[in-house]
Amino acid sequence: MKKRIVLALGGNALQKNGEATAEAQKKVAIEVGEKIAELANKYEIIIAHGNGPQIGNILIHEEKAATDQAPAMPLETAVAMSQGQIGYWLTQAINNAFLKAGKNKKVATIVSQVVVDKNDSAFKDPTKPIGQFYSKKEAKTLAKKNGWTVKEDAGRGWRRVVASPKPIDIVEKKSIQELVEDGVIVIATGGGGIPVTRTKVLKRLKGIDAVIDKDYAAEKLAELTKADIFVSVTAVPNAYLNFGTKEQTALKNITVKEINHLKKYGYFKAGSMLPKIEAAAKFAEKPGRTGIITDIKHLAAALEGKAGTIITK
Amino acid sequence: MKKRIVLALGGNALQKNGEATAEAQKKVAIEVGEKIAELANKYEIIIAHGNGPQIGNILIHEEKAATDQAPAMPLETAVAMSQGQIGYWLTQAINNAFLKAGKNKKVATIVSQVVVDKNDSAFKDPTKPIGQFYSKKEAKTLAKKNGWTVKEDAGRGWRRVVASPKPIDIVEKKSIQELVEDGVIVIATGGGGIPVTRTKVLKRLKGIDAVIDKDYAAEKLAELTKADIFVSVTAVPNAYLNFGTKEQTALKNITVKEINHLKKYGYFKAGSMLPKIEAAAKFAEKPGRTGIITDIKHLAAALEGKAGTIITK
Repeated sequence: MKKRIVLALGGNALQKNGEATAEAQKKVAIEVGEKIAELANKYEIIIAHGNGPQIGNILIHEEKAATDQAPAMPLETAVAMSQGQIGYWLTQAINNAFLKAGKNKKVATIVSQVVVDKNDSAFKDPTKPIGQFYSKKEAKTLAKKNGWTVKEDAGRGWRRVVASPKPIDIVEKKSIQELVEDGVIVIATGGGGIPVTRTKVLKRLKGIDAVIDKDYAAEKLAELTKADIFVSVTAVPNAYLNFGTKEQTALKNITVKEINHLKKYGYFKAGSMLPKIEAAAKFAEKPGRTGIITDIKHLAAALEGKAGTIITK
Repeated sequence: MKKRIVLALGGNALQKNGEATAEAQKKVAIEVGEKIAELANKYEIIIAHGNGPQIGNILIHEEKAATDQAPAMPLETAVAMSQGQIGYWLTQAINNAFLKAGKNKKVATIVSQVVVDKNDSAFKDPTKPIGQFYSKKEAKTLAKKNGWTVKEDAGRGWRRVVASPKPIDIVEKKSIQELVEDGVIVIATGGGGIPVTRTKVLKRLKGIDAVIDKDYAAEKLAELTKADIFVSVTAVPNAYLNFGTKEQTALKNITVKEINHLKKYGYFKAGSMLPKIEAAAKFAEKPGRTGIITDIKHLAAALEGKAGTIITK
């Protein structure tokens, strides 16, 4: 039986040198698609992806050009739009990679709602900046009008900040799993998923403006779809200690216990390597499962235990 | 065995009185979702939907607020964005309708590429206006810069016009069918699908700026997924002869032959009832299949043969 893998592609994985046209991003998707198609003989594949730069641009367009007749879409709906956008590019790139390789494999993107807890402590202190920069005055006016939290962003101006709550469930998990079992490469939980809450008694779904970390969402997806391996595909071949210094050391095979030890000593940076490390280590807590951090170039080798940072219990 | 139905929801089905906020459209989606959830005991359901007003607004935002750093997405990618947006709203509305009814049914939106022929005659004479209005000068400049065709739109200003080619295949058809067979309500080919062509020899997929009629795309979806019934769900209970006049006559049970006869005499208007009639009649050409035109209110009755315009061979 093929091993089932979940790949979490970095939010910047489709943008090279900040080139944000559809054409430029599709070109990068072709490279990614070919790497993924090469794995399809050996693995059942589920792909999650970030949407940082893409949703930034969607929100800028929605907000700057909004009118009464053409109102701006809220963040949660904008996430859904980014799932359509990036899912389409990736699907087509993988479709074409299979055609090139003469393989008759299917690919599908599922629009995915990810459930978060309304009482998640993240909602008390929103920290994730999104959308365009504003002057202080504009920001304060928008905050009042839309109920936004706004903060000054490192001297560059004012921005809206939203919560980044933890994912607790994925509404479409069964459909995703069924497609994978039918042999389809599935793209899901794009951008960390459309954030939704469930009402307390009736369990109704309701969108909420937030940004779910794509590595945490992808790890949850890996758990719920009974994957064997979770990979955070990032810009570097490994996770490192003292990254960018003379003492830089690549982490290779490592246990969850060792990771937790290093974490305690502050070795991994929040907003950078920390969520990837945490997601991969969380997945590897259960015996028989592997969490990997590597780049797209070393992905195939890492899946065979020959490259990347490989975390096991 | 349950009958399999494909419902083509009108592009305006989610906008009441032109209210275009996400909030307003979600409210309408709740009504639609409840009607659809009621059918799930009796039928396997696939939902296609239009995106006219939604993609209009997406394009306005993309084009008006485009910068070098945040460039406008092309039409084909904007269709993908609208599939994420509307698919999310419909999925959640149906999810909640099932929760309300105490049913444990699944719903999933699949981002869908619909193949058109690069040599379709529609590309020679683009007629479908999209996006915002421009002055003649702006329109001519954009036409030159982006390779657009632009036309004056009934004295209201200049607009881009694109081709509306016929759908010939749906890339994700197998995944859609597999999900339906697994008991999932599937939302697919939103907005007529993301228009793509296949290169001649190598059959590679490539997005193309065009607008595929959602009724034709939904009919193709119904054929490819082996549906029993195709319904064009529109704003009126039936198709009519002499609509809006004293001689208005609702069409009830009618054969494909009779429809073709009426068509020949110009009874159905292009851009209005004609594509719905053509799609439903095309589907009903094969014995054992039924094409229906009705509104959401009469949908359940029409599926039982008790309302709507019902076309059979």
